[in-house]
Amino acid sequence: MSETLEKLKKYLEEKSQYDHVTTLLYWDMETGTPKEGLAGHVDAMTYFSTKAFEMGTSKELGEMLETLSKPEEFGQLDDTMKFIVTRMKRDMDKEKRIPAERYEAYVRAQAEAGNAWREAKNASDYSIFVPHLKNMITMTAELAGYTDPGKEVYDVLLDNYEEGMDSATVDRLFDELKKELFPLVKQILAAKQPENGKFQGNFDVNAQKEVQWMLLDYIGFSREKGTVGETEHPFTLNFCSKDVRVSNHYYEKEPLSAMFSAIHEGGHGIFEQNVNPDYDNTVAGSCYYMGVHESQSRFYENILGRNKNFWLPIYEKLGQLLPQFQEISLDEFYREINHVKNSLIRTEADEVTYCFHIILRYEIEKAIFREHVAVEDLPELWNEKMKEYLGIVPANDAEGILQDMHWSDGSFGYFPSYLLGSIYDGMYLDTIEKELGSVDELLAAGKISEITKWLNEKIHWYGNTRTPKEVMEKVCGTEVSAEPLIRYFKKKYTEIYEL
Amino acid sequence: MSETLEKLKKYLEEKSQYDHVTTLLYWDMETGTPKEGLAGHVDAMTYFSTKAFEMGTSKELGEMLETLSKPEEFGQLDDTMKFIVTRMKRDMDKEKRIPAERYEAYVRAQAEAGNAWREAKNASDYSIFVPHLKNMITMTAELAGYTDPGKEVYDVLLDNYEEGMDSATVDRLFDELKKELFPLVKQILAAKQPENGKFQGNFDVNAQKEVQWMLLDYIGFSREKGTVGETEHPFTLNFCSKDVRVSNHYYEKEPLSAMFSAIHEGGHGIFEQNVNPDYDNTVAGSCYYMGVHESQSRFYENILGRNKNFWLPIYEKLGQLLPQFQEISLDEFYREINHVKNSLIRTEADEVTYCFHIILRYEIEKAIFREHVAVEDLPELWNEKMKEYLGIVPANDAEGILQDMHWSDGSFGYFPSYLLGSIYDGMYLDTIEKELGSVDELLAAGKISEITKWLNEKIHWYGNTRTPKEVMEKVCGTEVSAEPLIRYFKKKYTEIYEL
Repeated sequence: MSETLEKLKKYLEEKSQYDHVTTLLYWDMETGTPKEGLAGHVDAMTYFSTKAFEMGTSKELGEMLETLSKPEEFGQLDDTMKFIVTRMKRDMDKEKRIPAERYEAYVRAQAEAGNAWREAKNASDYSIFVPHLKNMITMTAELAGYTDPGKEVYDVLLDNYEEGMDSATVDRLFDELKKELFPLVKQILAAKQPENGKFQGNFDVNAQKEVQWMLLDYIGFSREKGTVGETEHPFTLNFCSKDVRVSNHYYEKEPLSAMFSAIHEGGHGIFEQNVNPDYDNTVAGSCYYMGVHESQSRFYENILGRNKNFWLPIYEKLGQLLPQFQEISLDEFYREINHVKNSLIRTEADEVTYCFHIILRYEIEKAIFREHVAVEDLPELWNEKMKEYLGIVPANDAEGILQDMHWSDGSFGYFPSYLLGSIYDGMYLDTIEKELGSVDELLAAGKISEITKWLNEKIHWYGNTRTPKEVMEKVCGTEVSAEPLIRYFKKKYTEIYEL
Repeated sequence: MSETLEKLKKYLEEKSQYDHVTTLLYWDMETGTPKEGLAGHVDAMTYFSTKAFEMGTSKELGEMLETLSKPEEFGQLDDTMKFIVTRMKRDMDKEKRIPAERYEAYVRAQAEAGNAWREAKNASDYSIFVPHLKNMITMTAELAGYTDPGKEVYDVLLDNYEEGMDSATVDRLFDELKKELFPLVKQILAAKQPENGKFQGNFDVNAQKEVQWMLLDYIGFSREKGTVGETEHPFTLNFCSKDVRVSNHYYEKEPLSAMFSAIHEGGHGIFEQNVNPDYDNTVAGSCYYMGVHESQSRFYENILGRNKNFWLPIYEKLGQLLPQFQEISLDEFYREINHVKNSLIRTEADEVTYCFHIILRYEIEKAIFREHVAVEDLPELWNEKMKEYLGIVPANDAEGILQDMHWSDGSFGYFPSYLLGSIYDGMYLDTIEKELGSVDELLAAGKISEITKWLNEKIHWYGNTRTPKEVMEKVCGTEVSAEPLIRYFKKKYTEIYEL
C-alpha cells in the first residue's frame, strides 16, 4: 500500500470517530436526553462536529486526495478506494470554492431560519418567516454559484439530492403523472368511500410497539444490526451497516400510524443494514441519494405494505397483539390503508394524492428559483395550487405553506426525491415481477424475504457507489419512466374502488 | 483571571467533551446498541477514552497545575478552583509515579481477568479464574506501591474508595456490628416468618415501569435532569448535575426487584442531580467516595423505602398501577420487604444479613493482602465464613466466591463502602430526627421532600469536595460509629418479628 493511501485510511478512520459520536449525540437527543441535559449535548455536538468538519476540509486531506488522484497512484487503488478518492476530491473541490465566512453565515442563517419557522408555524404567521425564507433563498443560490458556477441554480439543487436529475427530466416525469393521476383521483373521490369507524378508539401503545417489532422482523430488519427508539417524528439514522437505528412515534388513537412508520423506516433501515460492509464509515457507505433511499422506504411502505397479500400471513398475529383488529376483517383493513382522500398535510396523505403534494412543492420551488416569484406571494400560490390539485384550501398557513421544515434549512430541491422514489418503485415492481414472478403471490405465500433479498442484491449492496441513473440502468435496464407507477396506481385503485 | 487559569479552564472544558462522549457511548452500549454495533462503539470508546486519558495526564496539564499551585497564584483562586487544582495535582502526582507500561499491563490484565471471571462464573469453575485473580492481586499491590510508597497496601486500597478510612477504623465498626447483629439475626430467624405466596405470579412489566416512575417522582428524582434506561444490572451514571441516568431491570416474577432498584438508583441519582452545578464537569462534581454515595442510595432504599410509613401515602396508587397489590395489605407488604433470610447472593440479601455478606468479603480481602492466603484456598475460606455468618454454604463457586465481578477488575477495597454507607445512614437518621423530627411522621404525612431537601443541603450540594470524615463532622458533628445503625436494626426487627 502506498504511504499516502495508508495515511489517508488512518485519517478517515479518525474522522469517522468524530462522525460516530455526533451521530450518537443526535440519536440520544432525539430519544432520551433529559431537558436540562440538552445544553451539554449541544456543546459536545458543536465541539465534535467542528472537529469532523475541520478534518473533512483540511489542507492535509486535500493534499492526500490530490496525490492519490495522480494516474500512477490512482491506477493502483482498488475499486472502493477509487470511488472514495474520486468522490471526496470532487466534493472538496466544490466545497473549497465557498468562502469560509460565507459558509459560516449560511449555517448561522439556517439556525435562525429554523427558529423563525417554528415560531411562524406555531403562530400560523407567515410574515415571521418571510425575511428568513428570503435570506435562505438568496444564500442557497449564492452557494450554488460557488460550487457549480455557470449552472442553473435549481438544477444544482436537484442534483444535490438526486445526482443526475435535472428539471427537464423531473418535468417530464411529473407532467406525465399529473396528466394521468388527475382524472384517476377525481374518479376515486367520486366513488364509494370506506367506513372507518372501527379504527377509532384507544389502541394500547405497548401493544403497538409489539406490532411494530412484528412488522420489522417480518420485512427483514435485523435486530442484530439495528434497534428502535421513540421520537417526536420517525426517522432512520445509521452509524454503519452494523448499527442502524429507526425511530417511531405511537399515537393511542391512530394505530395505523406507527405500523406504517415502522414499515417505512424499516425500509430505510434494511437498505443501510445491507450495504457492503467494506464501505462502512466511508463516502461509499450510507446512500446519500434521497430519491433512491426513499424508493426503498416507500417500496416497503406502499408497494408491499399497502398490498393486501402482505398482510395475509400476519393478519391473525396482528389481531392477537391488538385485539381490536379481530373485529376488523382483512378486507376492511385493506380498504382503510388505501383510503384516498384529499388532505392538507403531506405527511398524512395517502399513496396517490401524495404525488400532488410533491408536485405542488416542486412547482413552487421552480417559481422561486426560475421565475423569482416574490416570497410574499408564495402562500397565495400555494393555496391556488392546493385548490387546483387537491380541491381544498388550508384555513391558515400552519397547515399550508408552513407545514414542512425543509425550506427553513435550505433544503430546496429535496421534495422531488420523495416522488422520484415512488417512480423508481414502479419500475422495480415491473422488474421484480419479470425476475421473481408475481409479487402478490410471493407476499401471499409469506415469501417477502425473496423480495428483500432481491433488493439487497440489486440495490442495497452498492450503497452510495451508484448514481440514481446507474441504479436504473443496472437494475431495470432502462431509463427512468413514470409509466409503471401510473399503471400500478390505475390497476390498484380500479380494483379497490371498483371504478 | 490569570493567563494560566484561563488556559486551564479551557483545557478542562475540552477534556470534559471527551469524557462526555465516553459516558454516552457507555450508556448506549448498556441500554441500546445492537449486537453487531458494539464493535464500532468499542472503537470509539477506545479512541475517546485514550484522548481523555492523554489530556488528563499530559505534561501541559501538569505544568498548569504546578503554576497554579504556587502561593502567589493559588491565593487568588476561588474556593472551587482551589479544590480542583489541589485535587488534580494530588491525583496526577500519584499517577505519574506509575510507569506507563505497567499501567497499560494493568488495564490489559483487567480486561483478561474480566473475561476469565465471566467464563469461570458461567462454568462455575474457580480454577479458570485463579491465575487471573493472582495476577490482579499482584498488580494491584504493585500499583499501590507506586502511588503510595511505604503505605500498607490494603489501607491504600480502602483509601481509594473511601478517603480517610483505614482498616483500623473499619475493623472497629465491623467488629461492633458483628458482635451485635449475630445474636439479633439468630433471634429473627428463629421467629415466625411471613407468608409470601401473594408475591408470586406474573406482574406486568409495563405496569412495573409505571410504578418505577411513580417512585422516582415521589422520592424527588428530577425528570428534567434525568431519565431511566433498561439494562442487565441497574446502575447510575451522570454527565453532570443536569443529566443523570439511572437504569433498571424488570423481572416479571419479582415485582419488588425493580421497585427497590428504582429507589436505590434514584437515591444515587438525586445525589448527583443536586450537586452544586458550578462543579459540573470538574473533579469537584460527581462524588467519588463510594461509601458516601452508597449511603444515599441505601438511605432511600432501606431507611426510607423499607419503612412502612414511606408507603402509606402511595400504597393505594401502587395498587392502581399493579392490581395484584390490591390483594396484599400494607402490613403484608411491609413484612415481605423486610423479610430476613439467610441467602447466598449478596445483591439479593435483605437489609440486615447484607452486613454479613460485606464483612465476609472484607475479611477475605484482608486475608489476601495481609495474611497472603493462597488464592487457591480462598473458596474454602469463603465457604467457612458463609457457614459461620449465614449458616449456609454455596453448592458451587458460581453462587459463592465467583458471584461478584469486583475482584476481576481489581476493585479490592470497594466492598466495605457498601456497609460504611449503611453505617453513615444510621448516623444521618439520628441527626435528621434531631433536626426535623420523627422520620416516621414525616413519611406518614407525605413529607418525604423535607428529608430530601435536608440531604440535598447537607450532603449532595458539596459533591466531591468533602471527604467522608468531613461529611460526618459537618453533618452529624461526630466521629463515625456503628451504634446508631445497630440501634435502628434492633428497634426495627424487634417490632417486626415481635422478638
